[in-house]
Amino acid sequence: MSLTPEEVQAVIWAGLPQAREQGLIIEQGDGGSIRARQPFDEKTIRPGGTISGPTMMGLADAAMYAAILSRLGRVEMAVTQNLNINFLSRPEPADLIADVEIIRLGRRSAVLEVRLYTVGNENMVAHVTGIYALPAGEEKR
Amino acid sequence: MSLTPEEVQAVIWAGLPQAREQGLIIEQGDGGSIRARQPFDEKTIRPGGTISGPTMMGLADAAMYAAILSRLGRVEMAVTQNLNINFLSRPEPADLIADVEIIRLGRRSAVLEVRLYTVGNENMVAHVTGIYALPAGEEKR
Amino acid sequence: MSLTPEEVQAVIWAGLPQAREQGLIIEQGDGGSIRARQPFDEKTIRPGGTISGPTMMGLADAAMYAAILSRLGRVEMAVTQNLNINFLSRPEPADLIADVEIIRLGRRSAVLEVRLYTVGNENMVAHVTGIYALPAGEEKR
Amino acid sequence: MSLTPEEVQAVIWAGLPQAREQGLIIEQGDGGSIRARQPFDEKTIRPGGTISGPTMMGLADAAMYAAILSRLGRVEMAVTQNLNINFLSRPEPADLIADVEIIRLGRRSAVLEVRLYTVGNENMVAHVTGIYALPAGEEKR
Repeated sequence: MSLTPEEVQAVIWAGLPQAREQGLIIEQGDGGSIRARQPFDEKTIRPGGTISGPTMMGLADAAMYAAILSRLGRVEMAVTQNLNINFLSRPEPADLIADVEIIRLGRRSAVLEVRLYTVGNENMVAHVTGIYALPAGEEKR
Repeated sequence: MSLTPEEVQAVIWAGLPQAREQGLIIEQGDGGSIRARQPFDEKTIRPGGTISGPTMMGLADAAMYAAILSRLGRVEMAVTQNLNINFLSRPEPADLIADVEIIRLGRRSAVLEVRLYTVGNENMVAHVTGIYALPAGEEKR
Repeated sequence: MSLTPEEVQAVIWAGLPQAREQGLIIEQGDGGSIRARQPFDEKTIRPGGTISGPTMMGLADAAMYAAILSRLGRVEMAVTQNLNINFLSRPEPADLIADVEIIRLGRRSAVLEVRLYTVGNENMVAHVTGIYALPAGEEKR
Repeated sequence: MSLTPEEVQAVIWAGLPQAREQGLIIEQGDGGSIRARQPFDEKTIRPGGTISGPTMMGLADAAMYAAILSRLGRVEMAVTQNLNINFLSRPEPADLIADVEIIRLGRRSAVLEVRLYTVGNENMVAHVTGIYALPAGEEKR
């Protein structure tokens, strides 16, 4: 039922045109955690040379969705219900990495945690928790 | 010290290229609250005809920044510290409206609330609270 | 189906021994919003003479539950799924007031907002949003 | 500058009467992370035999404060600015454990994560993130 990283990426690129345009890559995933990478794009830069907040929020949201696909298969109707982000330090102009952990998977919703980094820097740039509502009847633990 | 809606929009367009590209408009603002409008753009559509979550998060973030500029003047180094969003209903393909209220303005931070709607529909599509860190020494109540 | 403030208070006192001990009062409620009051208690004081954070979180949580009971009737299995609180100013040693608004009521969950004050002071002391999960099959819009 | 678990517990018991009454114990702490334990108390039980939400929120808040004391020493004026909690599963009637990690320590604020468990059960019962505001001039990285 679960999907490989390549399958997850294909589902996301088909369903989220913004993710495809931005070149979102699913690097790893084993059903409980996943790593996504957002290649650096000049257009996401804010004054001061840092990556914009909405870029980080968009990556976190897509990466949580990827983790759910990886675990549950094609639950394309899963939708974000809540997202809480703490911005920690200004990201350098570099690829962004999102490490996602599913911290609870219930029948009706999933709770996830995302830690965001820039490539080559061990300081976390943002920390996210989110709730995804799962479609009724599609839950497959 | 406070700025008019037109001045706020000019500061935002100068500083946030994404906001300028997306045509973000500051419609009203009186120093304590503000209304921003995100014109509809086909590129922000998700399967099912709804507007993407990151589009709503980006609008909420820019609108909170606009409310701070409107109240405090050119505090360009204000940065988002926390953003919490609850998605309430799927937005129709239409202009998004963000109504922002500053619920507390302290010396070091501001707490804001944003209610998101689509034009012509009274159902709230998302509810946001956020914390902006204010630059030391620039606080002007 | 909806309950009067007196009925809501009786359900809460029967089900939440802590609320009964603390003397939580439901002052008003009309199915969409509710006001709860937490009488002042010396035991909730922190050094500096301010009311403790957990006291405010407990009141907000009980008041959200009260708003759901007021609107939906006896959905005793409703449970808090998420609570996000921003502390705004130190509350004086006085009764706490919680004004709750149901901002979305869905089949499976409700999203609520709570504004906390102390009696006789117009400055908000804390702002809360929360998600309550509603028991399957009990939803009654 | 940092404190031992015993010193942290003494500061908390002196400053937070509720924590002393509830017998909060600081079990471990090394300046970057800490473990706190809330002994089981019949009074915190909700109908259904589960521990109340406010009990978990209170423990998380006190444990975050303990982690800051452990790292920075006696910054007694540190105050909670934001707390976001996701309730994951109903805790059994047993001691609660809070594992805290400081995920960012800045000059003006700290961001922390707390994972709550009951003793002898590996399922997380709640996940918390929080922001503590640090007193100006006391920051010591």
